[in-house]
Amino acid sequence: MGSSFGDLFRISTFGESHGGGVGVIIDGCPPRLELDLEAIQAELDRRKPGQSKITTPRKEDDQVEILSGLLDGVTLGTPIAMVVRNKDQRPQDYREMEVAFRPSHADATYQAKYGIQARSGGGRASARETIGRVAAGAIAKQLLAKAHGTEVIAWVERIHNLEASIDPGQVNLAAVEANIVRCPDQAMAAQMIERIEAIGREGDSCGGVITCLVRQAPIGLGMPVFDKLEADLAKAVMSLPATKGFEIGSGFAGTLLKGSEHNDAFLPTSDGSLHTATNNSGGIQGGISNGEQIVIRVAFKPTATIRKAQQTINDRGEATTLEAKGRHDPCVLPRAVPMVEAMVALVLADHLLRQKGQCGLW
Amino acid sequence: MGSSFGDLFRISTFGESHGGGVGVIIDGCPPRLELDLEAIQAELDRRKPGQSKITTPRKEDDQVEILSGLLDGVTLGTPIAMVVRNKDQRPQDYREMEVAFRPSHADATYQAKYGIQARSGGGRASARETIGRVAAGAIAKQLLAKAHGTEVIAWVERIHNLEASIDPGQVNLAAVEANIVRCPDQAMAAQMIERIEAIGREGDSCGGVITCLVRQAPIGLGMPVFDKLEADLAKAVMSLPATKGFEIGSGFAGTLLKGSEHNDAFLPTSDGSLHTATNNSGGIQGGISNGEQIVIRVAFKPTATIRKAQQTINDRGEATTLEAKGRHDPCVLPRAVPMVEAMVALVLADHLLRQKGQCGLW
Amino acid sequence: MGSSFGDLFRISTFGESHGGGVGVIIDGCPPRLELDLEAIQAELDRRKPGQSKITTPRKEDDQVEILSGLLDGVTLGTPIAMVVRNKDQRPQDYREMEVAFRPSHADATYQAKYGIQARSGGGRASARETIGRVAAGAIAKQLLAKAHGTEVIAWVERIHNLEASIDPGQVNLAAVEANIVRCPDQAMAAQMIERIEAIGREGDSCGGVITCLVRQAPIGLGMPVFDKLEADLAKAVMSLPATKGFEIGSGFAGTLLKGSEHNDAFLPTSDGSLHTATNNSGGIQGGISNGEQIVIRVAFKPTATIRKAQQTINDRGEATTLEAKGRHDPCVLPRAVPMVEAMVALVLADHLLRQKGQCGLW
Amino acid sequence: MGSSFGDLFRISTFGESHGGGVGVIIDGCPPRLELDLEAIQAELDRRKPGQSKITTPRKEDDQVEILSGLLDGVTLGTPIAMVVRNKDQRPQDYREMEVAFRPSHADATYQAKYGIQARSGGGRASARETIGRVAAGAIAKQLLAKAHGTEVIAWVERIHNLEASIDPGQVNLAAVEANIVRCPDQAMAAQMIERIEAIGREGDSCGGVITCLVRQAPIGLGMPVFDKLEADLAKAVMSLPATKGFEIGSGFAGTLLKGSEHNDAFLPTSDGSLHTATNNSGGIQGGISNGEQIVIRVAFKPTATIRKAQQTINDRGEATTLEAKGRHDPCVLPRAVPMVEAMVALVLADHLLRQKGQCGLW
Repeated sequence: MGSSFGDLFRISTFGESHGGGVGVIIDGCPPRLELDLEAIQAELDRRKPGQSKITTPRKEDDQVEILSGLLDGVTLGTPIAMVVRNKDQRPQDYREMEVAFRPSHADATYQAKYGIQARSGGGRASARETIGRVAAGAIAKQLLAKAHGTEVIAWVERIHNLEASIDPGQVNLAAVEANIVRCPDQAMAAQMIERIEAIGREGDSCGGVITCLVRQAPIGLGMPVFDKLEADLAKAVMSLPATKGFEIGSGFAGTLLKGSEHNDAFLPTSDGSLHTATNNSGGIQGGISNGEQIVIRVAFKPTATIRKAQQTINDRGEATTLEAKGRHDPCVLPRAVPMVEAMVALVLADHLLRQKGQCGLW
Repeated sequence: MGSSFGDLFRISTFGESHGGGVGVIIDGCPPRLELDLEAIQAELDRRKPGQSKITTPRKEDDQVEILSGLLDGVTLGTPIAMVVRNKDQRPQDYREMEVAFRPSHADATYQAKYGIQARSGGGRASARETIGRVAAGAIAKQLLAKAHGTEVIAWVERIHNLEASIDPGQVNLAAVEANIVRCPDQAMAAQMIERIEAIGREGDSCGGVITCLVRQAPIGLGMPVFDKLEADLAKAVMSLPATKGFEIGSGFAGTLLKGSEHNDAFLPTSDGSLHTATNNSGGIQGGISNGEQIVIRVAFKPTATIRKAQQTINDRGEATTLEAKGRHDPCVLPRAVPMVEAMVALVLADHLLRQKGQCGLW
Repeated sequence: MGSSFGDLFRISTFGESHGGGVGVIIDGCPPRLELDLEAIQAELDRRKPGQSKITTPRKEDDQVEILSGLLDGVTLGTPIAMVVRNKDQRPQDYREMEVAFRPSHADATYQAKYGIQARSGGGRASARETIGRVAAGAIAKQLLAKAHGTEVIAWVERIHNLEASIDPGQVNLAAVEANIVRCPDQAMAAQMIERIEAIGREGDSCGGVITCLVRQAPIGLGMPVFDKLEADLAKAVMSLPATKGFEIGSGFAGTLLKGSEHNDAFLPTSDGSLHTATNNSGGIQGGISNGEQIVIRVAFKPTATIRKAQQTINDRGEATTLEAKGRHDPCVLPRAVPMVEAMVALVLADHLLRQKGQCGLW
Repeated sequence: MGSSFGDLFRISTFGESHGGGVGVIIDGCPPRLELDLEAIQAELDRRKPGQSKITTPRKEDDQVEILSGLLDGVTLGTPIAMVVRNKDQRPQDYREMEVAFRPSHADATYQAKYGIQARSGGGRASARETIGRVAAGAIAKQLLAKAHGTEVIAWVERIHNLEASIDPGQVNLAAVEANIVRCPDQAMAAQMIERIEAIGREGDSCGGVITCLVRQAPIGLGMPVFDKLEADLAKAVMSLPATKGFEIGSGFAGTLLKGSEHNDAFLPTSDGSLHTATNNSGGIQGGISNGEQIVIRVAFKPTATIRKAQQTINDRGEATTLEAKGRHDPCVLPRAVPMVEAMVALVLADHLLRQKGQCGLW
């Protein structure tokens, strides 16, 4: 348990940072979807380490192989298995950490829960696990685009205390990908990159906030009462490593408004559709999408593994000092952008199938 | 789908604001738990309408009847069904809303999804649905207390822009229940009550923030990678009506720290347990509880249904004005405190059974 | 866990033979289904005790109350909760059994698993639990009839060694209900009734076989590879009390044929539909319905609780003799006919929603 | 959906007869289980094609690669992914079948459900899919053996109308593996082999019955009321290709007995354990294992794909004749023995974890 997500568009990931590889099975992808295989690899490339000077220099090709579920590039309705081989492992970097629990990492809790762990590279808690999510999310995106013209797009909104100024209506993928920090405010992006580099040079790390937007969202997705769309979105992104907070629509700031200020007035429409004057709801009302843009924000903490010396303990509970030797990201956000998009796409695809069935989309 | 929560300690709720009643089935509660039935009713009384001058004046007794699963007050391991009858219904209050969609409420999306709805009283989107959650949560709390001495306690931390000053280590149930807004900062509580009354007199509403703490949490709860404990907590509370944001530990504020500031140093222990100098992790690392206090914060928006006139549309998409006539809470937070506790307790109970099995707790 | 069945048309039952009552929640029933409430009660009447001289003389009205999910008799898409109150309890009949484990009953295993039980009336293992299944199945039948004109019909084919001679194509509900044993071979039915009475007078019991047929089954139901339609049907009926065997189509007898004899030749069709010359497949190929009649057979053992003296043990493992005093069915099959129909209908409804989604049926 | 099985010891299989390979993920295997990797391969060798003169001559090595979940051969508690590459594909053998639906095979129903299919080699309906089940079952067996000394053993009891005479108490793996048909009655095995060869030479096929036994079964496995142990066993084996019937304990024959003949008398015990004089219950009472041997029987139909000419239709519904060219098993039973064992072991492992939790076994 714990490594599957979704009910009808269900993914199951596997793999650690050591061992043969990592990957995912998608069970429930509708048949007759013509897959763009390059688009799947492109998402993995946005996620992979070593892609720029502000990510870990660890080198992994992360070439995906699809083992099943396709005939001539078209989905069969059967499980789609995707595998990425592990390559650039340096277990020697982890020797010290094998005797010292990294503060705010999963070392100590995994040991407490399982009584065994593969600490090299972070084991199952490694960000490599998200490869399966991103690959599956790339397929969910294609499904959503074909079924409803839906677009899922995320970007870095804040790094440390550097906040971008962004008009969500204007953001597009090109603007996000125009710089290595994935912030569509190009001027602020330059500052963010500089900040990450500076903090990295200190042997330290930083966090920030990612915003994700869904355009042309299908109406009617989400189930009362526990599987509300925002509840499933919250679980989806809070299951990503290093997340500390989630907001839908107005979020925490919305709690400062009165109801008369916060409510989204419905505007007259001639075709039975819904349209609101404002969007504090973030595209979801009563747990069900209303067709407006879905907007969420996700908080990512500073990377736990840093080179600076830290006080900690070893397996026997004795005090020790740790200076991590591995190659780590000083800031996870640039690589987390495709992860957030993937999780959001997976939630929407799952709810779309609950609504329409596995064979009812086209 | 959508009305069940949890895997091993699984609850299924039913019921609308109209109809015979609302309730819940718990499937998977371990056998041989001696239930304190008065404690269950006490939680429902904390939740019920009409309990004070700052809640809706609607009167419901909300007396719970347990239909199954017990022998002389002791659990059998079989499903526990609990029912609360509906009583104080005034469908006439909803006549106007039957033709006008309430802004930021579930009216429009339910209609779009189902093509039918029971709008009287909010239907399934009514806060009455949470009765089943609170009753089940009361049993989960008793299970946690017996199995591990675990305590779950929540309180109002902010109303509108009035923020309490609270030492979490000192909060107890008596302090929370000492005033009708459920804020243990008694001085600020008085201001909060005044604010809610003032806003209510305007025909308006307000929101705020609830904090929830878990003391003596079992270590090792949570599953990598999708069923991380914080992910399940996020889904749990974001499935409550009116929630807009979730934080674990340092939350959004933690994103402003560097890794060296944010990391929780492990302190030496002599008995193999874990203890950290700070708790920015909020008691969870790598998705698994580390035994420190679990701390979450939940944002609640201002109540959507207000008496002030609002622009909206009717079923045909035509513009209309709505002044809600029903009896509504100007602020949901005082009544939401036991709801948050219930959802947190349900998540912990579920994960405890995943770890120990249904019959392995005592 | 264990008291829910189905994924998209999911039922959760509750209740023991003692306590306030028994019932069921249906989660996922599509909206806008106009329910025939009398038809639901009629199914419960086919199941209830005391309906004829060959069933237990225990008297229960088994009047169902629907607590939620409907507006003016039409489904809302929200959970439908149904409750039947317990009435005719005679715990004194069970005193002796409280110290002696009934052979081949659930007494000993429940005690071993849970360390506690409500043995009076059989507790959760009582046939009263099936009330929830039959009530939910009655709704599933109506859904199938509206969505696809599908009919589910079962009958008694054999009692003890008395085998009926039946042309499945001719069976209808009137013929099944024309006698109290529910065997549409009226001549054999008379013998069966006589046999059950004779065996009952001995203080003994007997079993037999029920056949169930699905006419106008939707094509395409069933999921490769674990959720094959026959696999889910097998689980469904093998979860009924007293079942010992399951067959689909040719069943065990089909294993005596060669492939050339057993294969069902496809006949030419002009409209793209499928039609086979024979139906050894029982309407399912590769786990997926092919549109032919679905045919299953279910073996029911003789009732475990008998009045004849039996050797057994008490809670301390000591030898003792038991002569059950309660009012028991000498043969469960007449009352099991609506249970089998209910379980089959529930499986089909669930798979129909997997195929079409919750809101895609009409 | 449909390609996962189990809740706590959950497997997800993937792969078709074409494409890169087939395999399985196990999610929930407890940590600290030292795996015998050769024993896993040995089970796959019992299942693989080309192993003897009475199986298909198709050659596949079926060498398993474990991609994750282990550290030095010991389980980590994280998902175990296993892959077997596809090799000996001859798509040309399937050209004719691509235009003609094989009678009683999955061709027509897959086409109806999905509107697309990979017919070469049977696609997802190929027996190759069971590789994942057998590999996972091999791990489940090791878990059961370590946790409780439990043994799962199956054998061929009948081929066509040739019925073996077997004392279940005496059967062991060596006796089953002593001949290529896997029937421990060595004299009858010789006749069975001859019969299969003769029918194979005719271009025809035959079926039969497999018995499976569980020795030293844990007591208390199975959940009232839907997840009864026999219900889950029934689903498990009825999800295997070509199965038509299932029996637990006395099965259909038991319906001919009276209650006084069928009931299993409890014998006195001094240690609180349960022991019965007979075992018509097949080791399960009230859906829960009682510690006696669990005994099931499974009916397998004759292989659908035969070389003999058959009447059928093509995709356009037009009549045609088919003489299958592929290399097919004249009888699936010898290779199905490890499949049945695997499915039974998976059910038991899953229920053991429901009872004891993921980390509570040792």
